[in-house]
Amino acid sequence: MYHIISIRDFEREDLDYLLDRAEVFETGRYPPGLLKDRLVALLFFEPSTRTRMSFAAALARLGGQSINVDSVEASSIVKGETLADTIRVVSGYVDAIVLRHPKEGAARLAAEFSSVPVINAGDGAGQHPSQTLLDLYTIRKSMPLDGIDAGLLGDLRYGRTAHSLALALSLYGVTLHTIAPTGLEMPVNIAVELRERGVEVVEHASVEEAIRELDVLYVTRIQRERFPDTASYYNVASSYRITTQLLEGVRDHLMILHPLPRAGEIDPAVDRTPYARYFEQARNGVPVRMALLHEVMR
Amino acid sequence: MYHIISIRDFEREDLDYLLDRAEVFETGRYPPGLLKDRLVALLFFEPSTRTRMSFAAALARLGGQSINVDSVEASSIVKGETLADTIRVVSGYVDAIVLRHPKEGAARLAAEFSSVPVINAGDGAGQHPSQTLLDLYTIRKSMPLDGIDAGLLGDLRYGRTAHSLALALSLYGVTLHTIAPTGLEMPVNIAVELRERGVEVVEHASVEEAIRELDVLYVTRIQRERFPDTASYYNVASSYRITTQLLEGVRDHLMILHPLPRAGEIDPAVDRTPYARYFEQARNGVPVRMALLHEVMR
Amino acid sequence: MYHIISIRDFEREDLDYLLDRAEVFETGRYPPGLLKDRLVALLFFEPSTRTRMSFAAALARLGGQSINVDSVEASSIVKGETLADTIRVVSGYVDAIVLRHPKEGAARLAAEFSSVPVINAGDGAGQHPSQTLLDLYTIRKSMPLDGIDAGLLGDLRYGRTAHSLALALSLYGVTLHTIAPTGLEMPVNIAVELRERGVEVVEHASVEEAIRELDVLYVTRIQRERFPDTASYYNVASSYRITTQLLEGVRDHLMILHPLPRAGEIDPAVDRTPYARYFEQARNGVPVRMALLHEVMR
Repeated sequence: MYHIISIRDFEREDLDYLLDRAEVFETGRYPPGLLKDRLVALLFFEPSTRTRMSFAAALARLGGQSINVDSVEASSIVKGETLADTIRVVSGYVDAIVLRHPKEGAARLAAEFSSVPVINAGDGAGQHPSQTLLDLYTIRKSMPLDGIDAGLLGDLRYGRTAHSLALALSLYGVTLHTIAPTGLEMPVNIAVELRERGVEVVEHASVEEAIRELDVLYVTRIQRERFPDTASYYNVASSYRITTQLLEGVRDHLMILHPLPRAGEIDPAVDRTPYARYFEQARNGVPVRMALLHEVMR
Repeated sequence: MYHIISIRDFEREDLDYLLDRAEVFETGRYPPGLLKDRLVALLFFEPSTRTRMSFAAALARLGGQSINVDSVEASSIVKGETLADTIRVVSGYVDAIVLRHPKEGAARLAAEFSSVPVINAGDGAGQHPSQTLLDLYTIRKSMPLDGIDAGLLGDLRYGRTAHSLALALSLYGVTLHTIAPTGLEMPVNIAVELRERGVEVVEHASVEEAIRELDVLYVTRIQRERFPDTASYYNVASSYRITTQLLEGVRDHLMILHPLPRAGEIDPAVDRTPYARYFEQARNGVPVRMALLHEVMR
Repeated sequence: MYHIISIRDFEREDLDYLLDRAEVFETGRYPPGLLKDRLVALLFFEPSTRTRMSFAAALARLGGQSINVDSVEASSIVKGETLADTIRVVSGYVDAIVLRHPKEGAARLAAEFSSVPVINAGDGAGQHPSQTLLDLYTIRKSMPLDGIDAGLLGDLRYGRTAHSLALALSLYGVTLHTIAPTGLEMPVNIAVELRERGVEVVEHASVEEAIRELDVLYVTRIQRERFPDTASYYNVASSYRITTQLLEGVRDHLMILHPLPRAGEIDPAVDRTPYARYFEQARNGVPVRMALLHEVMR
């Protein structure tokens, strides 16, 4: 049985294959009702509406149906029994499980007890492979992934999506430019792992310094709760904010991405520039998740 | 692109057309699967279960599928990003959005940022056009709308449904009879607008005084929180309550309508009289919403 | 119209018929899309995720669609209007209602006001007939129901599922073995009723004493809140816990069942024995509920 648990489980050829499949689904060149009569449980044990809606949309586009738990039910399940029991019961009802869980490692555990495929839709500080795939997919629609200069901006210490994207990009011989506030730099072990995988990692002191060298700028959220007080948060956040002035002199094909929701990291005026690709990126969640759902259930 | 935002956007011929379409859907004279493979997001940012269920039912009857946010997710979205961002992302997943929002003007704003049609399912003190259409539809099934005597009873100051219905009925040359407790009378600007549109507006001091002149009596909720204390609420509420005694001598074809839920405004004994049409009215929400969903997505 | 309200409404031949139907649905020997275009409201006024998901899955397997209320909406409906009004409105939207409600008798009341069939999915201390049917179904898949020795273990005073199962089994000439902590014994009136129906009821002081005589052991939860303090709860709970040691010398075909979720009543090590049948039992909820849904809507 085929589970989707971590981006680390994928070789470059696996990623390329899934991205190719997503393209087929986006362009509509596939037979109708591919997942007709298939039933998927969307088990979201923490709210992630965007991810859930996009999985539900992907499944519906393929003719399948989803079953949800609502947020109140989810917390009562967590209190009432072990994840192993929940998974054993629910996997008796459906053809696949999409799992979102606050605890790292939950998806791997679920896969052990499930009688149907499990797709990890984010497990705590752990993995969120469908997000990484849609990030890659969005870039690849505009340029080959090989050898690009990709900037990672924001909270690179706790930012799960940035770590996973960096690991995936390491398979494509890229150069990574990291731009993070003091205290929120990329953890040393991840930087070491990336370098061992042959990635050049360049640290920058500011966005201005890096932005004109980039093909892709991946912006992530800087969370207020990481700072001792509101004033120091605003100080930091404002100097990492993308504005239209910052964009003067950048490469014509620069893509600004963001996993969304954004707080104040990107000025809304940037939305009207050709560099803003984050809404397109969100939309790409649907074909990418169609590819994943189809892959595990075909 | 066709949005459904406010009853004020409709001319008489638009309303007649939509009511005719609803009739087609109620009588089942339409091809099956008209909205097969169409996906609609039901974005309810405040609870309105009845409206949501009725839109979901309407869509399912046409072969389409809906995606929901649950109440907890909804409040986390509201906290997490702007409505504009939510709408831009969600409209990338689906073929139409049905929006319920606590803030007046939200639906108009959403329509600006959406890449798919938006149907307003109520925005705060603003508009709720599908409710008004089902009110009209229910009346029109029993009698021509032109020139009827329609009574509006209850909280006419804050009651959004009563205002919208009054505006819509103004296109049919009706006479409006208003019956409201002191302090909850229809706002002067709305009464003036209705008169400018050629409506005769007659104020009544009590239900008894008006009820025998009416073809339709539209009852709305009087909310406890409008009153300084419980005693004065009960005083007022009881003198605006519809009972079987009140119904002696009314016109044979009198229809009593209510947008529901009702608190104590209508005695349950009235349910067994032929005048009680509010449950039929609720049921009419389905064909009316089928007409709206089909209209914006065909 | 056909409602499913209480296991007491069924004669032995009705149960046999429904269990036969469930078997047809489990083995897949039925035409596709039997409930295509049918719409069912899952009105869960208290959380019971397992039951809800299993009804949703059953309906989807038959080609039908479900409409849910989320937990927050549910509590606002309960506050906002009478159950009679809710049912009258919702039954105007759908083809059947599955109702879960905290108050005993709610399902019977709902059936009175509904214009479509109502299936009781649990009403307080009252009935939960689909659970009992899936319990029977699980046993019958392994052995004929007639004359079996069935043990009921745990809270037999408040445990609704145990009462209903006992009543249903009384139609099959079984012997019931009850094993309950002091204070949680089966109520006298139920024991009397069972004996009047010809059932031999044998009380046991411990699990050890009974387990080697049993064909089926039905374990139920002992709830902490029934005890004055945590210590006395743990004392009792541990002496009613099923472990692998306890299973030495039992009949080869012994089935251990549990309505789930379990707290600590069954040691996870038991899961790996052939006696553990509770996950299979949960899975049987789907074909049994397919049979019920099909029965009321065909």
